[in-house]
Amino acid sequence: MDDQSRTPVSVLGLGSMGRALAAAFLAAGHPTTVWNRTAAKAETLVDQGARHAGSIKDAVAASPLIIACLTTYDATLEALEPAATALDGRALVPLNSGSPAGARRLAAWATEHGARYLDGAIKNVPAAVGAADTLLYYGGDRSVFDDYEPALRVLGGDTVYLGSDPDLAALYEMAVGGTLLPALVGFLQGAAALQARGLEAASMVRFSIKWFEMINSVLPTFAAEIDNHRYDNPASSVNLFLAGAADDVELGREANLDITWHKPFHDLLERAVAAGHGEHSISALIEVIKPT
Amino acid sequence: MDDQSRTPVSVLGLGSMGRALAAAFLAAGHPTTVWNRTAAKAETLVDQGARHAGSIKDAVAASPLIIACLTTYDATLEALEPAATALDGRALVPLNSGSPAGARRLAAWATEHGARYLDGAIKNVPAAVGAADTLLYYGGDRSVFDDYEPALRVLGGDTVYLGSDPDLAALYEMAVGGTLLPALVGFLQGAAALQARGLEAASMVRFSIKWFEMINSVLPTFAAEIDNHRYDNPASSVNLFLAGAADDVELGREANLDITWHKPFHDLLERAVAAGHGEHSISALIEVIKPT
Ligand SMILES: NC(=O)c1ccc[n+]([C@@H]2O[C@H](COP(=O)([O-])OP(=O)(O)OC[C@H]3O[C@@H](n4cnc5c(N)ncnc54)[C@H](OP(=O)(O)O)[C@@H]3O)[C@@H](O)[C@H]2O)c1
Ligand SMILES: NC(=O)c1ccc[n+]([C@@H]2O[C@H](COP(=O)([O-])OP(=O)(O)OC[C@H]3O[C@@H](n4cnc5c(N)ncnc54)[C@H](OP(=O)(O)O)[C@@H]3O)[C@@H](O)[C@H]2O)c1
Repeated sequence: MDDQSRTPVSVLGLGSMGRALAAAFLAAGHPTTVWNRTAAKAETLVDQGARHAGSIKDAVAASPLIIACLTTYDATLEALEPAATALDGRALVPLNSGSPAGARRLAAWATEHGARYLDGAIKNVPAAVGAADTLLYYGGDRSVFDDYEPALRVLGGDTVYLGSDPDLAALYEMAVGGTLLPALVGFLQGAAALQARGLEAASMVRFSIKWFEMINSVLPTFAAEIDNHRYDNPASSVNLFLAGAADDVELGREANLDITWHKPFHDLLERAVAAGHGEHSISALIEVIKPT
Repeated sequence: MDDQSRTPVSVLGLGSMGRALAAAFLAAGHPTTVWNRTAAKAETLVDQGARHAGSIKDAVAASPLIIACLTTYDATLEALEPAATALDGRALVPLNSGSPAGARRLAAWATEHGARYLDGAIKNVPAAVGAADTLLYYGGDRSVFDDYEPALRVLGGDTVYLGSDPDLAALYEMAVGGTLLPALVGFLQGAAALQARGLEAASMVRFSIKWFEMINSVLPTFAAEIDNHRYDNPASSVNLFLAGAADDVELGREANLDITWHKPFHDLLERAVAAGHGEHSISALIEVIKPT
């Protein structure tokens, strides 16, 4: 199965995401070495042709390209400590989630031990690994990206290099991903309001999907307003959102929901109005989120 | 321009949305009467062939189908009071946003005065009025929907009848629309984190759009989990989100952002863990949002 023209790669961390990454490399014919703290998780991959490294040091020594997908940057650093001396000259590419500060800590430690460091983030679920439109972005050592771009593209066709700061992927991942929890809680609250009326959550899905598509269609406008600090031609004003706040409370009461989480949003709206943004675009809320 | 086979329609309220609605009826050849509290807003529409009613009572008397698009249900009720006697036998279709309770108040008042009441909601911006995939949903008197469906479809090709309760459109509109403010604040916070690094909000738009598409792809699964009360096969667990909370705080501090709004979300996560949902799907948060 191995193709000698393909870069040998080691995958550290075989959780749901790490296993999907290793399987994609195997399927693409890369000589693939795998390691996991709990060795049993390597079994299926070994059946698929992976080499199993008994220690993380052996795993790091086995390939020029090291993909790590542990839970956090700190767990990755901790796990890599016994392999520190093997890192010299290796390209280390962690793909876990985490904060920019975590990425910088790992980058500093790894480069100190002679590794070339390229930080990545995969913005999708394990099942999407390898798909043509799956997005992965990277920040850090450009030479790693250039040397191994074909291997990195095995993980997703939409592969982007953001720049040379080793924390850029983490920064973008958090900047982009920060909509998930609040959007989901909004969705769950809507589902709860329907359930309070004996209606199924499934009945709103088609509408919610359309709604997020609508939100997507206005993001370029909001970004332009933010980047130009021009909020004075609003499609939806801060005042319009504030007017809706009373309705939110009314529905929450009627459906007997916990709507404690609305309060800080209403506070942001009110502070924006107090700062003179009432008739400005809702994107002007960024001015009260940002440092003054 | 009038087509005698088209239903005559009166449009009350000529704000940004009302003007778009009236223009769509005119373009489709409907004899269209318009009324607005501030008469000047009718001018362009009159140039396009609309009849201008000098009083709301005249506007209501002019057509069998009355579309109202004022700010709120209460404003609509207040504005309609002088036209109460003209409502008898008319079909009243308000398309404003508002709470289910507001819809029920207006419905009760209008039916008391002999109107047939069909409540609607348009889930899009004025520029989308009339497009083939623009969604409008309706709840209330089925006979109004059946009698005037071709006229209603002029406003958007994706026209849906939800059921006979007069507050269903408002309920779904709020259930679906409740993701907007939290999702936008998440986006704005991300943009603020980029700006703190000298990066443009525009640089994240392509990624955010993809992210919302990913969110859309998981909504059917979440809805099924919720409707079946089965959270035990999670794609993303409550614990996973809770683990990310520390990163959110770290990035917020680093970029000097106001992240007060994170706290209630983290509280929800912690209450879900306390209720035994740590290893359950994030959709299990609905159990702590709902009444116990
Ligand atoms: N799953 C997704 O949908 C998804 C999507 C995008 C990004 N991600 C990110 O990818 C990363 C991994 O996610 P996952 O879903 O694969 O997680 P997971 O299934 O929970 O797996 C976690 C992995 O980290 C290892 N690990 C944790 N702490 C360790 C330590 N101190 N030393 C050695 N190994 C340690 C675990 O080893 P053991 O097996 O020995 O416990 C396991 O291999 C996370 O940062 C996650 O946010 C995941
Ligand atoms: N614009 C959107 O993107 C959008 C999208 C979906 C739904 N909607 C909903 O559609 C409704 C109207 O939105 P809009 O954007 O058209 O608002 P708008 O531009 O602010 O217009 C509000 C309209 O309501 C009238 N009005 C308010 N209070 C009144 C009162 N007491 N008596 C008589 N007339 C009164 C105003 O008359 P004057 O001109 O005399 O002030 C004006 O015609 C809202 O519920 C909104 O949430 C809007």
